Amino acid sequence: MVGNSNRVDNFPDGNDLEDPMHFSRPFTAPLEVHKVSVPPETSTFQSLRQRLCEFFFPDDPFHQFKNKPFVRKLVLALQYVFPIFEWGSDYSLGLLKSDAISGITIASLAIPQGISYAKLANLPPIIGLYSSFVPPLIYSVLGSSRDLAVGPVSIASLVMGSMLREVVSPDKEPILFLQLAFTATFFAGVFQFSLGLFRLGFIVDFLSKPTLTGFMGGAAVIVSLQQLKGLLGIVHFTTKMGFIPVMESVFENKGEWAWQTVVMGLSFLAFLLIARHISMRRPKLFWVSAAAPLTSVILSTIISFVFKAPNHGIKTIGHLQKGLNPPSANLLDFEGSYLSLAIKTGIVTGILALTEGIAVGRTFASLKNYQIDGNKEMMAVGAMNMAGSCASCYVTTGSFSRSAVNYNAGCKTAASNIVMASAVLFTMLFLMPLFYYTPNVMLSAIIIAAVIGLIDVNGALRLWKLDKFDFLACMSAFFGVLLVSVQMGLAIAVAVSLFKILIQITRPNTVVLGNIPGTNSYRSVAQYREATRMPTFLILGIESPIYFTNSMYLQERILRWIREEEERITKLNENSLKSIILDMAAVMTVDTSGIEALVELKKILDKRSLEASISDRHCNLKFGSLVGILLDMSQNGLQLVLVNPVGDVAQKLSQSGVWDLFGSDHIFVTIGEAIAASSHKVNV
Amino acid sequence: MVGNSNRVDNFPDGNDLEDPMHFSRPFTAPLEVHKVSVPPETSTFQSLRQRLCEFFFPDDPFHQFKNKPFVRKLVLALQYVFPIFEWGSDYSLGLLKSDAISGITIASLAIPQGISYAKLANLPPIIGLYSSFVPPLIYSVLGSSRDLAVGPVSIASLVMGSMLREVVSPDKEPILFLQLAFTATFFAGVFQFSLGLFRLGFIVDFLSKPTLTGFMGGAAVIVSLQQLKGLLGIVHFTTKMGFIPVMESVFENKGEWAWQTVVMGLSFLAFLLIARHISMRRPKLFWVSAAAPLTSVILSTIISFVFKAPNHGIKTIGHLQKGLNPPSANLLDFEGSYLSLAIKTGIVTGILALTEGIAVGRTFASLKNYQIDGNKEMMAVGAMNMAGSCASCYVTTGSFSRSAVNYNAGCKTAASNIVMASAVLFTMLFLMPLFYYTPNVMLSAIIIAAVIGLIDVNGALRLWKLDKFDFLACMSAFFGVLLVSVQMGLAIAVAVSLFKILIQITRPNTVVLGNIPGTNSYRSVAQYREATRMPTFLILGIESPIYFTNSMYLQERILRWIREEEERITKLNENSLKSIILDMAAVMTVDTSGIEALVELKKILDKRSLEASISDRHCNLKFGSLVGILLDMSQNGLQLVLVNPVGDVAQKLSQSGVWDLFGSDHIFVTIGEAIAASSHKVNV
Repeated sequence: MVGNSNRVDNFPDGNDLEDPMHFSRPFTAPLEVHKVSVPPETSTFQSLRQRLCEFFFPDDPFHQFKNKPFVRKLVLALQYVFPIFEWGSDYSLGLLKSDAISGITIASLAIPQGISYAKLANLPPIIGLYSSFVPPLIYSVLGSSRDLAVGPVSIASLVMGSMLREVVSPDKEPILFLQLAFTATFFAGVFQFSLGLFRLGFIVDFLSKPTLTGFMGGAAVIVSLQQLKGLLGIVHFTTKMGFIPVMESVFENKGEWAWQTVVMGLSFLAFLLIARHISMRRPKLFWVSAAAPLTSVILSTIISFVFKAPNHGIKTIGHLQKGLNPPSANLLDFEGSYLSLAIKTGIVTGILALTEGIAVGRTFASLKNYQIDGNKEMMAVGAMNMAGSCASCYVTTGSFSRSAVNYNAGCKTAASNIVMASAVLFTMLFLMPLFYYTPNVMLSAIIIAAVIGLIDVNGALRLWKLDKFDFLACMSAFFGVLLVSVQMGLAIAVAVSLFKILIQITRPNTVVLGNIPGTNSYRSVAQYREATRMPTFLILGIESPIYFTNSMYLQERILRWIREEEERITKLNENSLKSIILDMAAVMTVDTSGIEALVELKKILDKRSLEASISDRHCNLKFGSLVGILLDMSQNGLQLVLVNPVGDVAQKLSQSGVWDLFGSDHIFVTIGEAIAASSHKVNV
Repeated sequence: MVGNSNRVDNFPDGNDLEDPMHFSRPFTAPLEVHKVSVPPETSTFQSLRQRLCEFFFPDDPFHQFKNKPFVRKLVLALQYVFPIFEWGSDYSLGLLKSDAISGITIASLAIPQGISYAKLANLPPIIGLYSSFVPPLIYSVLGSSRDLAVGPVSIASLVMGSMLREVVSPDKEPILFLQLAFTATFFAGVFQFSLGLFRLGFIVDFLSKPTLTGFMGGAAVIVSLQQLKGLLGIVHFTTKMGFIPVMESVFENKGEWAWQTVVMGLSFLAFLLIARHISMRRPKLFWVSAAAPLTSVILSTIISFVFKAPNHGIKTIGHLQKGLNPPSANLLDFEGSYLSLAIKTGIVTGILALTEGIAVGRTFASLKNYQIDGNKEMMAVGAMNMAGSCASCYVTTGSFSRSAVNYNAGCKTAASNIVMASAVLFTMLFLMPLFYYTPNVMLSAIIIAAVIGLIDVNGALRLWKLDKFDFLACMSAFFGVLLVSVQMGLAIAVAVSLFKILIQITRPNTVVLGNIPGTNSYRSVAQYREATRMPTFLILGIESPIYFTNSMYLQERILRWIREEEERITKLNENSLKSIILDMAAVMTVDTSGIEALVELKKILDKRSLEASISDRHCNLKFGSLVGILLDMSQNGLQLVLVNPVGDVAQKLSQSGVWDLFGSDHIFVTIGEAIAASSHKVNV
C-alpha cells in the first residue's frame, strides 16, 4: 500500500490457457491501482461565484490591477477606459508620421465610400461623410485597436436601409426615414454598449464564420444587384432587395438602360477591379487599390464636367451642403409607432456591425501580436454609435477593407483615425462643391468593387472540403439572404449552426477502444487499425457529456454495442464477455438524467448477469453443487466499470450515491488499471 | 523502429541540474512514440449514410431480420408491426388468469377516473368512458409494452381542456368544443405517428426529467385548484387556470360554499388519500388504492340516493346515455377558422401524452427487463389516437397510476387492456343509470387523489442537491405553469434546459493536468491533489468540442492559463515554460472555427517565442555568438503540442493541413510520449 493506492498484481505472465487467440499482451509494467479522487466539495455559493466569474470574466480583464498601489490602479483604470492615455503618453513624431500617411490614405478611400454607403442605406450622401468624421474621433479615444479604420460599412448600411425601407419609403418620407435611421443607430449603440458592459460579448460568436461567409457573400450579391440601378441608369427600379424581383426589374426596364452611363460605369468598375487585383497580388502596392476610388471620382467628375454629362443622361450627385455635422439629438424618436422598428433595426445592424468590427480588430491585433478585449471594444463601438446618433451619423464600425489599407499603409495607433477625420472635416468644409458633377454611376462602381471582396468562393469550397455541416450553414445563409431576406438569411443560418450542435449532443459518438500493442494506451479501433480488443472486455469511449438529450440514446446504444460484441464473439468463438468498461474521459459533465441512465444501465446488466447465471445453472445442473453455482454467478456477471470520471462527473456520482452503488472497485483512473484489476479478480 | 512507431529514449536518469525542485519523476518505463492515426477516409456519401443511420436508427431495430429466410422475415415483420402475434401465439390459460385479474382491477380504477378526467378536459363524462374502451383495444394489438394501462390521463386532459377553453367556451358552444377536441385528438395522433414513423422520437427526450417534475407538479396543483369548484360546491367559478385568479374566485364566492358538499368531499378525499398511503407503504396491498375510487363512487352514490342529495345542494352527474361509442369521424373539422388551434392543441397534448406513455412503458419494461422501441411505441399511440378521434374518444396514452396498478396486479401481456375494455363496455351498455346519483364532488376527490402523486417534492430536493441548473429548470416549469400558463411553463422549462447546454458549450472547462506520481497517467490537478505539474510543461485538458461558440473563448482562456502559469513560475522561481500540451481526448469534434482557433493559437505562441528569443538576444548580446542565438531561439520557443486527437478531429486536422503545420513531431498519442519526446529534444 502506497499512499491511498492499492497495489494489485499485473497480468499473469506465461501462457494463459483461457485465451484462444494469439493476442499481444498490453504493456505489463507493475501497475498500481490509484484511487479516483472526487474534487474537494465547494459550497453552492462558492461554485456559483466561480462559475459566474468564468462566464463573465473568462479573460480575467482586471489581472493587471492586482497587487498594485492605489495611484497606479487609478492610472491603469484611466488607461483601461481611455486607451488614448496609454498610447498617447509615448506618442512620438515618428509614430505621427506613420499615422499621418495611413490616415490620409484611408481618408482617400473613406470619402468616396462614405458617400456611396450612405446611398446604399437610402440616406443622403452627406450623412456618409458626417459618419466618417465624428465616430472615428470618438473611437480614437476609446478604442483599443491600433489598426481599425472606423466609418460606415457596406453590410450594416445595406441591412439598415433595407429593414427601414420595408416600412417607410425614403423617397416619400425622407425626414421620417432619417429620424428612424438615427434612432436605430442610437439603439444599435445602446445594444452594443450593453453587450460589452454586461460582458455578453460571446453572443457575437454565435454568428459563426461559415454563417458569416455565406451571409456576406449573399449580401454582397444583393448589394451589387442594387447597383445595377445606377450602373444601367435605370429610373424605375424595384424597391425590393431579393434576387428575383431585382432581376425582373432590370429586364422589364430594359428601355431605360442608358449606354453612356453603362460605358462609364463599366470602364471605371474595370479600373477599380484591376487596381484591387494588383494590390491583392502585391500587398506592397496596397496604395494602388487605396487610391483608385478617389482617382476614379476625380477623373469621372472631370469627364462629367467637361462633357456636361447631365445633358447626356448621366445623373450626378448634385448639390451637397457644406459644413460640420449638425446636431441630431432632437431627431431621435422614442415615442412614435415606429419605436419597435427602430429597436429591431438597431439590434440587427448593431450586432452585424459589432461582428465585423470585432473580427477586423482581432485579425489585425493577432497580426501585430497584441490582444483585444472584445467586451471593452464593444463598449467603445457602442459609445461611438450612441454619440454618433446625436451628431447626424448613422451606424458605424471598423471597416474590413479600410482597416486592411490602414494596416498596410503602416498605421501605428488609433491616431490615424484622427488624421482621417481631419481630412474628412477639410472635405466637408471646403471641397463639397467639387462633388457636384460626380456621376452617380461612379458610386455604384465603387460599391461593387468594395463588396466583391466579400464573396469568398474559396472559403466556401474549403468549408465543403472540411465540414459539410458548416458548408450547409454557409449556403443557407447565402441563399436565405439572396432569395428570402437579409434578416431571414441570418436567422436561418444561426438556426442551422445551433441545430448542428444540438444534433451532436443528441447523437454523440461512442467508440470501441482497443489496446495499442506495446503501450498502455487504449484508443479507438476505428481510428487505430493496430489497436486490439481485449478479450472478455468491451471498452467503450463515450465522447460527450451525458445529458437529458442523449441519456436514453446512449443507454440504448451501449446495449447495442454489447449485443453486437456478443454476436461477434459467438461468431469468432472467442471467450465470452465479462466486463463493460466505460471510458468517461470525454464525459465532462452529467446531469440528473445522465446519472439515472448510468444507474439504469448498471441495473440492466446486473439483471442480465443474474439471468445468465440462472440459465447457465440449468445447464450445469448435472455437475451442480452450491460452489459451482456461486462460481458460475461470479463468472457470468457482466460487470460495468467506469474509468476516469472527471471532476464534475466524479462529484455528481459521489453526491448522488452512484459511486457507492458501483463501488470503488468498479471505478478506476485508467483503463489499464481497470483491466488489470478485473483480470486479477477473475484469475484468483 | 517497430512498425510505424519511433522509439525515443525515456527521461535521462540521474540528477537533472536544471530542475530546481525536488520533483517526483513520472513512471519511467521505456517509451515508444506511437504515430497518431488518422481514421481511413470515407467518401462524403458513405459518411453521410453512416451519420443518417446513426441518427435515425441508433438502436438498429432491424437487426433481428438479418440473415433470416424470407418467410421468417415475413413473420417477424408481422410480429414487429402487430406485437399481439408475438405474445398471442404463446398465450395460455395461466396468462389469461393473471391478465383477467389485473384487467378487472384497472377497470375499477379506469371507470371513475375516465369520467373524472373527461370533466377535467371540459368534456361530457361519457367521453371519458368511450376513451377507455376503443384505444385500449387498439393498443393491445399494436403496443409492445406488457404493462401499459391505456386511457385518458390527467395532464393531457387538463392541457387540452385549458388550451381549447382559451378560445371556445365549452358551456356556450359544447358541440364546437367537442368537435375541436376530436380534431385536436386526431392531430395529436398524426403528430405522434409521424414522430415514430420518421424516427424523430428523440424529440420527447428534450422534455428532460427535471422539466417534467416541475411541469407535472405545477399541473397537479393547477388541477387540484380547479377541483375546489366541485369540492366547495361553488357555482360561479373562474374559467381561468392560473393560481391567482382561481384563489381570487374561491374567496370572492365564499357565499356559495355548501357545507354538505364540503363534508362529503373531504371525507372521501381523506379515504382515498389514506388508501393511497397504505398502498404506497405496502406495495402488496396495491388493491386497496386500486379499489378505493370505485368503492367511494358506489358508497357516495348510495348515500346520495338514500339522502336525496340533490335536495341538499349536492350536485350529481345525472343522466348518462347508454350504448357503444358513436362514430365521430364526421365531427372532425379540417376547414374551420379553428384549424390552427386544433393543430396546436394536438401537438402540445400529443407530445405530453407521448412523454408520459413512453416514460411509463420504459419504466415497467426495465423492471421486467425487456426493451421497448420508443419509435414503434409512438406509432402505436399515434394510431390509437387517430382511430380514437373517429370513435368519440379524446386523447389517450399510457397512464402512470393505472399502469402501476396493472403491474402490481400481476398483468402478463397487453391482454389486460382487452379485459379492461370489456369491463368498460359492460358498464357502458348496462350500468350507466347507476351513475345518476353519483355526486360531482366525488369526481373532484378522485382527481385530487390521483394527481397528488405527481407532486414530487423529494425529487425536486434531490435535484437541488445534485444539479442546481436542473433544479432551476424544474422550478421554472413549476412556477411557469402555476403563474403564467400551462404551455408557457413548458416552453420556459425547455428553454432553460437548452440554455444550460448552450452555456456549457460556450464556456467549456479547461483544466491543468499533472502527473499522478508512480503512474503514467495525467489528471486534473484540481481533482487529484497528488497530481504534480511537470516543470517546463503546461498540460491543459480541453473538455469540450471546439466549436464556433467557444473557439474564441478557448483561445483566450488558454492564453490566460499560460500567463498565469508563467506568473506562478516567476513567483516560485522555477524553470521557464517551454511547451504547452493540449490534451484533446475530450475534444470529440472541431468545426472550421475550431481549427482556425488552433492555428491562431499556434501563430500567437510562435510569434511570442520569436519575440522572446529576440528580447533574450539583446540581453545575451555580451556572450553573443550565432550559435548562442540559435540555441537560444530553440530553447525559448513556446511549443504547442497536441495529444490524442480523436477520429473526427484527426481527420479534420489532416484535411485542413493543420496536421502538417504542427508536424507529426508535435502530435502524440499520449501525454507521456509528448513529454518524453520533448524532453529528449530539449536535452540533446
